[in-house]
Amino acid sequence: MSVNQPLCVSMIVIGDEILNGRTTDLNGTWLSKFLFKKGLQLKSLRFIRDDSEEINAALSASMLESDIVITSGGIGPTLDDKTKNTLASYFGKKIVENNDVAKIVTENYIRFGRTWTKESNHYHFFPEDFLATANPKGLAPGITYYSPETNKLIMAGPGVPREFTEIVEVEFFALIKKYFQSRLLENYQTVIRTTGVPEEKIFFELCPTLWSDLEVFGKVSSLPHTIGIDIVVSYNGDEKFHLETQKKIKDLITSTPLSTQVWQYGNTPINELVLKKALEKKCTFGFAESCTGGLTSSKITDLSGSSAVFHGGVISYDNSVKENVLKVKNETLKKVGAVSVEVAEEMAVGLRELLKCDYAVSITGIAGPTGGTPEKPKGTVAIGFAGPKSSGAKLFHFPGDRIRLKDRFSDMALLIMLELIE
Amino acid sequence: MSVNQPLCVSMIVIGDEILNGRTTDLNGTWLSKFLFKKGLQLKSLRFIRDDSEEINAALSASMLESDIVITSGGIGPTLDDKTKNTLASYFGKKIVENNDVAKIVTENYIRFGRTWTKESNHYHFFPEDFLATANPKGLAPGITYYSPETNKLIMAGPGVPREFTEIVEVEFFALIKKYFQSRLLENYQTVIRTTGVPEEKIFFELCPTLWSDLEVFGKVSSLPHTIGIDIVVSYNGDEKFHLETQKKIKDLITSTPLSTQVWQYGNTPINELVLKKALEKKCTFGFAESCTGGLTSSKITDLSGSSAVFHGGVISYDNSVKENVLKVKNETLKKVGAVSVEVAEEMAVGLRELLKCDYAVSITGIAGPTGGTPEKPKGTVAIGFAGPKSSGAKLFHFPGDRIRLKDRFSDMALLIMLELIE
Repeated sequence: MSVNQPLCVSMIVIGDEILNGRTTDLNGTWLSKFLFKKGLQLKSLRFIRDDSEEINAALSASMLESDIVITSGGIGPTLDDKTKNTLASYFGKKIVENNDVAKIVTENYIRFGRTWTKESNHYHFFPEDFLATANPKGLAPGITYYSPETNKLIMAGPGVPREFTEIVEVEFFALIKKYFQSRLLENYQTVIRTTGVPEEKIFFELCPTLWSDLEVFGKVSSLPHTIGIDIVVSYNGDEKFHLETQKKIKDLITSTPLSTQVWQYGNTPINELVLKKALEKKCTFGFAESCTGGLTSSKITDLSGSSAVFHGGVISYDNSVKENVLKVKNETLKKVGAVSVEVAEEMAVGLRELLKCDYAVSITGIAGPTGGTPEKPKGTVAIGFAGPKSSGAKLFHFPGDRIRLKDRFSDMALLIMLELIE
Repeated sequence: MSVNQPLCVSMIVIGDEILNGRTTDLNGTWLSKFLFKKGLQLKSLRFIRDDSEEINAALSASMLESDIVITSGGIGPTLDDKTKNTLASYFGKKIVENNDVAKIVTENYIRFGRTWTKESNHYHFFPEDFLATANPKGLAPGITYYSPETNKLIMAGPGVPREFTEIVEVEFFALIKKYFQSRLLENYQTVIRTTGVPEEKIFFELCPTLWSDLEVFGKVSSLPHTIGIDIVVSYNGDEKFHLETQKKIKDLITSTPLSTQVWQYGNTPINELVLKKALEKKCTFGFAESCTGGLTSSKITDLSGSSAVFHGGVISYDNSVKENVLKVKNETLKKVGAVSVEVAEEMAVGLRELLKCDYAVSITGIAGPTGGTPEKPKGTVAIGFAGPKSSGAKLFHFPGDRIRLKDRFSDMALLIMLELIE
């Protein structure tokens, strides 16, 4: 384990659109994951408006607390793009015409099959001593400055997420390596992912000493996830140290009553686990979805390579589709209602026959806000399964609003698909 | 129009999980939308770690710039929850046992059918002069403090999104009204939503004076959206002023070549427009999805009330499902390939017959990263449609990675469904 101070990054997201609720942030979320993997610490993440004074204040605070400052937004050609001018005046640099920058901009345009001239915009006017970078997925150049006096690096990228992520991975990270190579450290986590027990029950009833037992290994956090509680232990070190620590933590948990509730020691999203397992076992699968309305299948098809094993699905939102397409019996629907283990099982069996796939999982539940009854309140879901050897269904209850419940129901369906394939 | 200073809010999101990339922020995104609607200005949004020093620094900066500070996270019962202690010491208040707080906590537990005692945790130890609030969807009480000297209000809520949103809407907003009623202003936007023209073409070729023409009405921003550019004009005023301004902006755009590219003057998400129109016209619909893998149907079923008109769909990821379930002809697939207007049209026609609904839209495209060819590169999508009178299909090209493309393709399918129903 290294005793170095971790390399700290502050991020500033510039633009009114996120603070006004028009857009959902993607860059901050992405950068947090990226930096974590690279062993850098994201010290803070500030969302501010397109306003020179606010950019200045955020810069001052960020420069104080971190080695590296990354901004996104405000580097385009329109009048609300203030980042370049503000950075120049913050570091006391004049903006001058720069032919090296003109070359980079010309190349950015060529990559898009377009032509740039000095009349197109002012991209080639650039702060003195600043370095422009290519923008692999966009037109505006990245704006960077390394201050040798303070040993700090500032890099301004575009706001569009596909441009931002690429410029950081390719251009900005190369600069971080150049200036801070000796301080790059690896950061690891062991994640204990549970289902079926509330947070308080874990730490106050099942395993009252678990928190302090885990703190021996690193920083502990407890995070509610869609289908249960994730307990995360974070530490710095090398790969060997990580594998040893992971094993020790696993051994510790195995000796507690929590172990039967753990579905993963790791951090792989459930959709990736399902796809990996299906590819490994070379089996095909699909989903019959009612209340989740396609979300479960959408999570699988977010993953490249899913077409090799994912056959497809049926969204049987209306009962007529359950009957006519999935061949759920009308009498079952009448007798026990659409949200029932019986209908869930018939949906899964029907889908498996229709799609001619190895495994089928079905979801039928009440996502609300309406449709709940005292016997089957909002949050009730029946998940059915069918494979070559057996079929069946289970009933679950989850808390949350409609969007949250769709998310929880579909993750639980994925977990059942994982167990089914295994 | 009022000349009042808008009421400013700073938000601090406390917790390692977002900065470490383990969780995606939902509270900041939600609060930005909520405050905008209520006419408050979200001045900044800071993500920091569970660390007393960092909470202190963020508090100082927030108290300087805003009237109201809202935090989320770190108010639970475990050892990494530091918000209460840090707030107390920031304002120089002692933490003491408080029976009023104990009552509120007791009631929070009763709402969940559970019992709280003073041995359960330390929720009833509370900073002097602070006010606890109920937590309608959770157990830990909200922590609030109004400073009469500075006329500032600080409110700390839970990190779990369903708890946070409810406590802000119900409890925190009541306190904002109590202390700042006279300064609550309405904020309005007129949004010009376009498709099919790049940002630079709009402002540099089609309508070179548009930006300054719009600035007469308020603050202008230009935001890339999934299927085109949104131009947003924001201003303060009353309902009457807003309707007048909206009409003037619409008249201005109608006189420009941009007008044929506008699909909405407003801010309603495309899924809501489709559902509203289908409910109005009392017609049923469904989607046949290949590359979007269920995302289009999932966007419709995110909306309560969709079950009245949304019949369902088929995810025909594998070509066998296109043939066997949607009755796409094998010869069509062989002759022109799955990503083609011909297959898209057959998918839509086949789904409409299978589901017995009024309108069907289909999506078949290449979301990548693999599967593209020189003739049909990644980002190509064919969208088919079928109604009682006609059927057809169109070809589109979009930029972006797999996730982004699924989002763009499905929004374009929704737009085509909207036009179809109209």
